[in-house]
Amino acid sequence: MQHSTIAAIATAPGQGGIAVVRLSGPESYLVAERVFTPANPKKTVAGAKGYTALFGRFCQAGECFDEGVALFFRAPHSYTGEDVVELSCHGGDAVARRLVEACIQAGAAPAGPGEYTRRALLNGKLSLTQAEAVMDLISAGGRQGAALANAALSGALARKIEARRQALTALQAHLTAWVDFPEEDVPALEQDHLKEELTAAAEELDGLIAGYGAGAVLREGVDCAIVGRPNAGKSTLLNLLAGFDRAIVTPVAGTTRDVVEQSVQLGEIRLNLFDTAGLRQTEDPIEAEGIRRSWRKLEEAGLILAVFDGAEDLSDEDRELARRCAGRPALALINKEDKPPRLDPAEIAPCFQKVISVSCKEESSRPLIEQGVSELLGTNRVDPHAASLSGQRQLAAAVRARDALREALSAIEMGFGLDAISVCMDDALAALCDLTGENASEAVINEVFERFCVGK
Amino acid sequence: MQHSTIAAIATAPGQGGIAVVRLSGPESYLVAERVFTPANPKKTVAGAKGYTALFGRFCQAGECFDEGVALFFRAPHSYTGEDVVELSCHGGDAVARRLVEACIQAGAAPAGPGEYTRRALLNGKLSLTQAEAVMDLISAGGRQGAALANAALSGALARKIEARRQALTALQAHLTAWVDFPEEDVPALEQDHLKEELTAAAEELDGLIAGYGAGAVLREGVDCAIVGRPNAGKSTLLNLLAGFDRAIVTPVAGTTRDVVEQSVQLGEIRLNLFDTAGLRQTEDPIEAEGIRRSWRKLEEAGLILAVFDGAEDLSDEDRELARRCAGRPALALINKEDKPPRLDPAEIAPCFQKVISVSCKEESSRPLIEQGVSELLGTNRVDPHAASLSGQRQLAAAVRARDALREALSAIEMGFGLDAISVCMDDALAALCDLTGENASEAVINEVFERFCVGK
Repeated sequence: MQHSTIAAIATAPGQGGIAVVRLSGPESYLVAERVFTPANPKKTVAGAKGYTALFGRFCQAGECFDEGVALFFRAPHSYTGEDVVELSCHGGDAVARRLVEACIQAGAAPAGPGEYTRRALLNGKLSLTQAEAVMDLISAGGRQGAALANAALSGALARKIEARRQALTALQAHLTAWVDFPEEDVPALEQDHLKEELTAAAEELDGLIAGYGAGAVLREGVDCAIVGRPNAGKSTLLNLLAGFDRAIVTPVAGTTRDVVEQSVQLGEIRLNLFDTAGLRQTEDPIEAEGIRRSWRKLEEAGLILAVFDGAEDLSDEDRELARRCAGRPALALINKEDKPPRLDPAEIAPCFQKVISVSCKEESSRPLIEQGVSELLGTNRVDPHAASLSGQRQLAAAVRARDALREALSAIEMGFGLDAISVCMDDALAALCDLTGENASEAVINEVFERFCVGK
Repeated sequence: MQHSTIAAIATAPGQGGIAVVRLSGPESYLVAERVFTPANPKKTVAGAKGYTALFGRFCQAGECFDEGVALFFRAPHSYTGEDVVELSCHGGDAVARRLVEACIQAGAAPAGPGEYTRRALLNGKLSLTQAEAVMDLISAGGRQGAALANAALSGALARKIEARRQALTALQAHLTAWVDFPEEDVPALEQDHLKEELTAAAEELDGLIAGYGAGAVLREGVDCAIVGRPNAGKSTLLNLLAGFDRAIVTPVAGTTRDVVEQSVQLGEIRLNLFDTAGLRQTEDPIEAEGIRRSWRKLEEAGLILAVFDGAEDLSDEDRELARRCAGRPALALINKEDKPPRLDPAEIAPCFQKVISVSCKEESSRPLIEQGVSELLGTNRVDPHAASLSGQRQLAAAVRARDALREALSAIEMGFGLDAISVCMDDALAALCDLTGENASEAVINEVFERFCVGK
């Protein structure tokens, strides 16, 4: 149990009908009493039962600045497991910020990033993977990403891993008994059975690891660089995806020099679009800086939309671009399909995982691009209700467990002693415990909550 | 009482720990029952009392996609005066959107813009000016804007206008009696007293009208154009105000060609900044388009920050810019005060309401600009707890009432008959009723709620 009482805005920033400021900790009711006056003089904050609400006024230093509702939760029946009061004021940043300020003046401490969820974890209301799922749920842009996170929140991953861990623990116990107490006449472990179990566990982890990328894209979106030579239609593509005229589009090459950012939802996937300067040789130092940024974006992006002008012959810049896209998650868009075709797609196809003919001016090209992207990133093959790995921490633990299991298997193949196999299995079990957060150290927990924002 | 039940996300869009979906209308409980299953099987939605909450799961078509809290309000003890259920789910757009979808499948209609507040108005929970205040409170960026809106929500304007209206109504009744029933020996109205009352009312309205602009700036923010010739430091200024590198800044003239938009909070004022292309003669058609946009922004903006390079002599473009700023709400910033000064501020001062020397690279220039802007726009003279006018509708009604009162006064001056004065006073009283929304027609109410977003 934490001893401080924390306050933060729990709803998204910006304009809304309602904003919620959440208090959690032993003094939540005391703080609420100082900033909130029930409209009904017969009611008191101190007397409010859990899961009841009061209407009243929010005040700071004797000045009332808004009215709204206080909703009370008594420990341990709350999100954090502590006393919680949720204060609903009128939305809009100014009012909600002032309410937090009033709470802090009344004795609350500002909440750190993810501190509510961290307290829920420490008070046993959530497991570590569930806490990670909360974060994913919050940041999900599409329904499938949210479904994946909800599957995790309801424990799909934890259950799957737990079943494997129990089976491996039983094997390991058997192995240890057989190695350590040879005189006790422990029955020998069937090597075939051992190999079977280890292989099944390793393959299950293989599946989770292989699905990681597509799941991450669904949960978190993907940075997407739009690249191509000047006037191929990059800004037109950005506007098509964004649904409005984000960038100045003109028929003159070299119009875009800033890297223009725009977040758009393309079907189930949130694309963080980076429209970039056209790639060409230039003497202009500003344009050159823009082009340097384009190449950098191309290196970093999780998805590349490479735009080619289908009505022109392939240029040297086009070939250079195609070359740089080889081995990368890149989709080639042959633009201007409304014009007589001159570019031969076969020339660039070997460098790309997929080539699509489009007209970036036409709304009808949007679903084609959407389909191409989801196939390229594998998001069309994700089962949103199945267990999945979320975040680098879980991925790393799964890889460690899988590698340890494979090592155990090759130790068996190579005829090593059972104690060597036992060491590998110890490693695998430890990694599986890490994955579900059992015995997670303070350091691991800190790392998880670094990804959270305040108010969660 | 409306007969439909509406649903919408009531919190701001984006990522947050909590999002709230609000149901209002006679079937709120029925809809809630279909999308929300209490965790405690002994509890039911139908049996939930007003101002109590339940924990449970949110489901759509048999599939549970999140868990959270339902908070119940029974008519008429709710924001809208109808049965209301507020469903708190995990924040993030995907989850909240899905919850709205589930509610609509369960029989709710999507709420129209401002429909919750409109229902509160129609059910007598709020007056028209209070409904407008709700909107202002939501959109307030700074504390003073929020305080102004809260003063309106608590009825400061309505009370002030009502007092005047009662005084004028008494006079008008007296006048009418005297005109219509000369034989009844009604005592004559003291002309001095009549003039005094009319003058006082007109002056009070003058004060409200004069304060309108500054109040609007505090409540709504102001569109602010950053203009100046190439390389005067416009993008550096944008970055100073925004607090990060929003635009590519290079020492080469002509870097910015898109109009870069950025909303920043400068003290109490939200500036919607438009950094514009440098103003100069150019052959480049793209740059020319950018410059045309710059001039247009300058015409439309509620605040102009004109940046001059203090280390250079005044150029023809500078003089043209200064000329265009004359009579406009423009602040001249003489930039690069760290370099030897060459520009003489006296040359441009006549065109500006204020001239300040700054260095846009230095954080210390920010408070100087903040102070200059608040003086220029008069926001430093606003009493945030006093009555104020909000929105064009209120302003227009106040102007109509004030003009009618002035007409009545000049009718008295010119010795017109009392019936002429009486007609003017009728107009004034009608305008005051319009202002506070008494007898507001459906058309007026529609106009007010067009300004709202969905979910308020």
